[in-house]
Amino acid sequence: MFIETVKWVGGIDGHLEMIDQRLLPSRFELLACRDTEALFEAIRTLAIRGAPAIGVAAAYGLCLAARAIPQDADGARAMIRITQQADYLASSRPTAVNLFWALDRVRRSAHAYATLKGFTLEGFRETILTQAHAIADEDKQMCLQIGRFGEPLVPDGGTILTHCNAGALATAGQGTALSPLYEAHRKSKRFSVFADETRPLLQGARLTAWELQQAGIETTVICDTMAAWLMKQGRIDAVIVGADRIAANGDTANKIGTYGLSVLAAAHGVPFYVAAPSSTFDLSIPDGSRIVIEQRNGEEVTTFRGIRLAPEDVGVYNPAFDVTDASRITAIITERGVIERPTKETIAEVLSRVRRS
Amino acid sequence: MFIETVKWVGGIDGHLEMIDQRLLPSRFELLACRDTEALFEAIRTLAIRGAPAIGVAAAYGLCLAARAIPQDADGARAMIRITQQADYLASSRPTAVNLFWALDRVRRSAHAYATLKGFTLEGFRETILTQAHAIADEDKQMCLQIGRFGEPLVPDGGTILTHCNAGALATAGQGTALSPLYEAHRKSKRFSVFADETRPLLQGARLTAWELQQAGIETTVICDTMAAWLMKQGRIDAVIVGADRIAANGDTANKIGTYGLSVLAAAHGVPFYVAAPSSTFDLSIPDGSRIVIEQRNGEEVTTFRGIRLAPEDVGVYNPAFDVTDASRITAIITERGVIERPTKETIAEVLSRVRRS
Repeated sequence: MFIETVKWVGGIDGHLEMIDQRLLPSRFELLACRDTEALFEAIRTLAIRGAPAIGVAAAYGLCLAARAIPQDADGARAMIRITQQADYLASSRPTAVNLFWALDRVRRSAHAYATLKGFTLEGFRETILTQAHAIADEDKQMCLQIGRFGEPLVPDGGTILTHCNAGALATAGQGTALSPLYEAHRKSKRFSVFADETRPLLQGARLTAWELQQAGIETTVICDTMAAWLMKQGRIDAVIVGADRIAANGDTANKIGTYGLSVLAAAHGVPFYVAAPSSTFDLSIPDGSRIVIEQRNGEEVTTFRGIRLAPEDVGVYNPAFDVTDASRITAIITERGVIERPTKETIAEVLSRVRRS
Repeated sequence: MFIETVKWVGGIDGHLEMIDQRLLPSRFELLACRDTEALFEAIRTLAIRGAPAIGVAAAYGLCLAARAIPQDADGARAMIRITQQADYLASSRPTAVNLFWALDRVRRSAHAYATLKGFTLEGFRETILTQAHAIADEDKQMCLQIGRFGEPLVPDGGTILTHCNAGALATAGQGTALSPLYEAHRKSKRFSVFADETRPLLQGARLTAWELQQAGIETTVICDTMAAWLMKQGRIDAVIVGADRIAANGDTANKIGTYGLSVLAAAHGVPFYVAAPSSTFDLSIPDGSRIVIEQRNGEEVTTFRGIRLAPEDVGVYNPAFDVTDASRITAIITERGVIERPTKETIAEVLSRVRRS
């Protein structure tokens, strides 16, 4: 019963439809993307955001790219176009590893088809759409599994703090960090949620509060400055956040402010959970020091809807993400199981566990 | 060469003039207060804020109150009016101890005059104005002394983080937390400042950035979510903040977000300084657990200039202040000296030191 953040409408000639998250919570509007340029802009300007949702959208983006391939193209020409458009879409957000993962997966499947005898453009396009649908379906399943594994960590009668939005609005399913909350709510557990507003873009106030409210979960919005004080008063039982990229040792890139919360949680003895699908792990990087942090436009900090919040010409620092050391993470909740005290070894064990089954 | 945040214009029939801080940084406008009701509203709506500036404004507020006393009043009737108006102004902000201190000081001085033989209303009003001027002058001196004591703590070539605004805009002089920076700048030290924007009311982005920019001090605005990440990267050499009330043991109430910064500073080995005049100490309360925390309207969090940032009817928590444990404070910089590792004993020693001299 969660909201549908991103979906493909129609068959191979269809288009991509998404909730325009730039307008929430004031207005609920659907945005249609009919070419990769529109999708690139939607990702870049955060009409759609959240690593899993971006991955699903980008996969469908290659269906849009395939629509634009000339009818007389052969497999080689079709693949040149798909590869080029995959690279283009990959450049829309530099940190979200799911984006690269989803594009690569669709591209490889397209490549496998393109090298077959009996290539037809229609078959090529069907292959891409089928693969994109598979990614979206797996995303929904992934969310559900994270919810089931994470639900026991939500204490009955407790209070959960979350940062940014790693909910239904960040995935094709019921979210990552918020999925255990949806499961706990379904089981009629009593709990309430504090949502960090999450400056500069206020995804917590605008999106998390909105989607939890839709679900009837008791939610209180706070400024990011207030989380420490709630912890000091013993009013937070656990922190749950999402992730944009996780290194092989468990170091986790997530929305700016996450690292600070992890330090505060440790100082107050509050468990700190990261919820993310296995596709968020980038085992090619040994630790967080290799993660490139996206720096965004300073106007996100110094202006709000054209109104200046700070003087003209003042310096601004606006990193989109920070990196939380694995040592500060109590557990990472994945769709394959819960990784307690994440290390290179415990991560490898859980990620391989279900692959074997 | 600092901006004049609050001043009395004219003689006993004059009025109070202040920078309307609600309009900064977009517009610079002066606000005139000609009665206590206008001043009450100015304090309540944060046209003027900062504990020392509120104290000075409230002292002058009793000059406005005295203007409204009927010509035929005797000393007893005049004092009833002043006491009632002092209580009224004291209720404009519940946490700022300087407010109560300044009102009480003017009231006592008025009382001393009112019980004299030869009472005249004009003499009474002169007494009040003289005492208010004395408070404003002492505030300027206090700021300067804090700056001189604090300046050696600003490392040459270093970077200072500050929260909210405890600068010239928060006092009648050159500020408390920012005063050591003005002194360091005057000595041509090279340093730069990160200003936490300070949600919900953005005093850091709007006010601190503005006044430091006016002074030519290199300033970078960040969201409150970004301070921890800067510390993690080793880019913060010291934190300096102001205070609204300090208990006998050194526990310090200051703008919400200060407590979290103190925890983050300790975790990263960054010195954490509080700068405040001795009038900020409330030796009648043994520790921070007795400090009443002002809860403000939730709309400060969920709306911005009438635009909704969070859904309607969502819960909101909006404490104006938090309390930082004395154990997390490296030193308190006062106009009487620097209190290293504040305790009941070190505080009493420094506060008495200069009283004796």
